[in-house]
Amino acid sequence: MAPDTPDTPARVLAFDIFGTVVDWHGSIVREMRMLYPHIDADAFALAWRAGYQPAMQRVRSGELGWTLIDDLHRLVLDALLPTFGLAHLDEAQRRHLNKVWHRLEAWPDSVPGLTRLKTRFTICSLSNGNLGLLADMAKRAGLPWDCVLSAEVFRAYKPDPAVYLGAARVFDVPPAQVMLVAAHQDDLAAARACGLRTAYVERPLEFGRGVARDVAPNLQNTYHATDLLHLADQLGC
Amino acid sequence: MAPDTPDTPARVLAFDIFGTVVDWHGSIVREMRMLYPHIDADAFALAWRAGYQPAMQRVRSGELGWTLIDDLHRLVLDALLPTFGLAHLDEAQRRHLNKVWHRLEAWPDSVPGLTRLKTRFTICSLSNGNLGLLADMAKRAGLPWDCVLSAEVFRAYKPDPAVYLGAARVFDVPPAQVMLVAAHQDDLAAARACGLRTAYVERPLEFGRGVARDVAPNLQNTYHATDLLHLADQLGC
Repeated sequence: MAPDTPDTPARVLAFDIFGTVVDWHGSIVREMRMLYPHIDADAFALAWRAGYQPAMQRVRSGELGWTLIDDLHRLVLDALLPTFGLAHLDEAQRRHLNKVWHRLEAWPDSVPGLTRLKTRFTICSLSNGNLGLLADMAKRAGLPWDCVLSAEVFRAYKPDPAVYLGAARVFDVPPAQVMLVAAHQDDLAAARACGLRTAYVERPLEFGRGVARDVAPNLQNTYHATDLLHLADQLGC
Repeated sequence: MAPDTPDTPARVLAFDIFGTVVDWHGSIVREMRMLYPHIDADAFALAWRAGYQPAMQRVRSGELGWTLIDDLHRLVLDALLPTFGLAHLDEAQRRHLNKVWHRLEAWPDSVPGLTRLKTRFTICSLSNGNLGLLADMAKRAGLPWDCVLSAEVFRAYKPDPAVYLGAARVFDVPPAQVMLVAAHQDDLAAARACGLRTAYVERPLEFGRGVARDVAPNLQNTYHATDLLHLADQLGC
């Protein structure tokens, strides 16, 4: 049982992935510098990620039918390449580059932190990334999930309540027995509105060294942690 | 790359679960003997399992809407209890007993075999069992899945082609790069019809010592293995 509230202990920790568990910005920058050293890798990574929410919005609005994140990443990528002088990339190169999201590297504390948290909790991903992306990433980075959960299972993207409530339903527990772990206050607020507990993780470098982030505690979260090892400390793991 | 067909190696091994990876009969018998020593545990386990296919058929026919296997197991259980003199079980007892399917034990070769196979392949479950059931089972039994896949993801039960083709789509590979591993020829035949490779695993004791099973090779399968260690041997893991 988790030590925080003995009467209704959290049983499941559900993790946001991009930025929370893996370093998308650093990973894309490193790979772009290897593949295409003449372009501004930092600006490229930020621009790619900036296209993510608007692309999901096209699905939410009904303009696009249900679409996997791999395909949304590709839509954004294709639109972006000419801006960065990469319009000449062929299909195989685009396909390979798009899969960089399957090859994102974990923050240094993620694998040891998850390994400790797994001893007391069921740990799962809860990401808008598709199942194949999350499974490839976990295998490569060694993320020890008990279960890979994705928006794909619920056919809705966070912050749709269907995703947070769906995670509780999968494990047959009340929402209060699931805690979302994320580096983004909007994700946590949406989970809280569904009755989940929430743990904020500071990731000051999510957008690289050039973008300052406010990582101040929000007292509405159940926990505030500097990283996943600090969360494990607080949860008695 | 798998050594069998270098031009289109299998990348994903998808495993049937009940009977193939875990010993449902032995596990239920052991638990029933502890909980309710006066009833015929062998007959009880066989009767519960015998209700499984007819219950799924009620969903396939449209009589029932989409239903998780946990809920189908419970429907069958409730109908079964009076026959075995257990009509007096209360809600908490029924709920606990129904979750025995989350507590099934692995065959002795399953964890070491999967651990070896995982070094060369993406390994996932591909079961009609629901995600929560499969995740609880994996955590308890130590099954080292890269991804827990279930009929629940595709909202169709095997042998519906949507399940086999869905697994290939999740991993963004052609069906021939997925191999279904199962102890049941009908499951393998349905996978083969969708273009998957197939590996048969002998589980002569799936239904206990009282029920003889034909485990003879079928040459239509890509591989025939006495257990998962033998499959790992053949796949060079």
